[in-house]
Amino acid sequence: MNMPSAQDDERPMFDKVALIGLGLIGSSLAHVMRRENLAGRISGAARSEETITRARELGLADEYHTDPAAAVQDADLVFLNVPVGAMGKVAEKIAPALKPGAILTDVGSVKAAVIRDVSPHVPEGVHFIPGHPIAGTEQSGPDAGFAELFENRWCIFTPLPDTDEEALRRLTAFWQATGAHVETMTPEHHDLVLGITSHLPHLIAYNIVATAADLEEVTESEVIKYSAGGFRDFTRLAASDPVMWRDVFLNNREAVLELLGRFMEDLSALQRAIRWGEGEKLHELFKRSRRIRREIIEAGQDTAAPGFGRR
Amino acid sequence: MNMPSAQDDERPMFDKVALIGLGLIGSSLAHVMRRENLAGRISGAARSEETITRARELGLADEYHTDPAAAVQDADLVFLNVPVGAMGKVAEKIAPALKPGAILTDVGSVKAAVIRDVSPHVPEGVHFIPGHPIAGTEQSGPDAGFAELFENRWCIFTPLPDTDEEALRRLTAFWQATGAHVETMTPEHHDLVLGITSHLPHLIAYNIVATAADLEEVTESEVIKYSAGGFRDFTRLAASDPVMWRDVFLNNREAVLELLGRFMEDLSALQRAIRWGEGEKLHELFKRSRRIRREIIEAGQDTAAPGFGRR
Repeated sequence: MNMPSAQDDERPMFDKVALIGLGLIGSSLAHVMRRENLAGRISGAARSEETITRARELGLADEYHTDPAAAVQDADLVFLNVPVGAMGKVAEKIAPALKPGAILTDVGSVKAAVIRDVSPHVPEGVHFIPGHPIAGTEQSGPDAGFAELFENRWCIFTPLPDTDEEALRRLTAFWQATGAHVETMTPEHHDLVLGITSHLPHLIAYNIVATAADLEEVTESEVIKYSAGGFRDFTRLAASDPVMWRDVFLNNREAVLELLGRFMEDLSALQRAIRWGEGEKLHELFKRSRRIRREIIEAGQDTAAPGFGRR
Repeated sequence: MNMPSAQDDERPMFDKVALIGLGLIGSSLAHVMRRENLAGRISGAARSEETITRARELGLADEYHTDPAAAVQDADLVFLNVPVGAMGKVAEKIAPALKPGAILTDVGSVKAAVIRDVSPHVPEGVHFIPGHPIAGTEQSGPDAGFAELFENRWCIFTPLPDTDEEALRRLTAFWQATGAHVETMTPEHHDLVLGITSHLPHLIAYNIVATAADLEEVTESEVIKYSAGGFRDFTRLAASDPVMWRDVFLNNREAVLELLGRFMEDLSALQRAIRWGEGEKLHELFKRSRRIRREIIEAGQDTAAPGFGRR
């Protein structure tokens, strides 16, 4: 991959990195930081003792805290890896303990709301750079992470107008070292782009699983048994962390509602075409999708193997 | 797997099997028939010379025809592997050439409409058993097939009231030899079960790809670039054969419209919960899905590997 060679010497990229939240993203960051020598010392914080215990067994960090403020002491880089709805509260807690000159970033799936909630707490001299790696799986918790999660994925920054260039450069180098590509856009545009590429797909997936589960004429065991016809694909997205996704929808409300409105309009048109037997219209619409699938594969964002190559 | 040992001797299960249609399912049947010695001779029919040429290069059959009637001559078992909307016409063409005592079956994704279209053409003494293997990938054509496609998948029969027991037993043995499990239900129930587990998921997938492609504020290249957040999953289903799917929706109209109505009702409730910030309602709904995902994995109908284990 496109790993830079800057880390070939023995000096880690950052002296101390704090991970606030040790779920899928936090634990993946821990793994890749070890592999790429990105942190001299990793401090990890989680709300539950259970997560801390498991993180300790996995050796994710060098020190563990249930108090996030304790975790950020002396950290040069701080990651907020908590549900979007919890970012503000966590920022408020850690603010007095942040080291002057530190970089504060997050991995939240929504950017405008995170900026709204976090910015007021950021002390003078701390560089807040909102970020979002477009990477994940349907699993969560400290066991879910792996070092390759970010490889060939995109990490989007939505920097504030007064962002320090050097801090941005250092955070870019960090993400590139994980194997990710970095892109920059406004928070509003991010929230719309992710609304269509991630939030709406998850909403639709959760919804169809609920519709299927509530049918009277088809039993749940039939839905499970015959799920290989397509339904099973949706259950993977719908198995994602429910708290994380609740927070995404509550905090990207406008974009999601706008996109959902368009989706429902288009679906009504399809419904009408089916009702009136408009085969040519259906065929034309269905034909378009193959090209987009092919381009996603060519862009390295999915496998070309049939059925995702699953066994 | 659960391969029966009946085929251990050298006698093939059927003397001659005709495959009308050499796409994903037809070519997979050809591969598994060779592996399991299910046919003494395979005859293949396809409409286009291009498909015949490719099938010949792949060695799928022992004889090739563009005329389906020529392909079914002397066949003991005939598979109709064509889009649902073409079944009636093909049945009409082959009817006079069918061997008395032969088993005629199909692999169509809709059963009531296929029975309606095919039954009138079935000659006295030919055993028509409608069938549907719940297996596939997003790829199509003679190159798409592989012998393992049906392994641990379900094949549903929707037998007519006067179905010959011996013919049903022989067709069951055939499908079991491919690695599939066999289940029986009414055509109406099949169409409803597949409506929710396969047809509605595909419709939703086609629809969201169209919605995404038509946005003005987000470019298509952005949709492609950031598709790993969930959207890419839908593009796989939406890359399926457009003619096959057009025919499914036109021929399972009532069930699809009924299910689509329920889906849209549920989606409106979700939309309302987002608009009014009802976090608890969203959380409750999202929590339910994980169990269904887990049960699908336990039932052997999907992989437990994160992200379908794709690379």
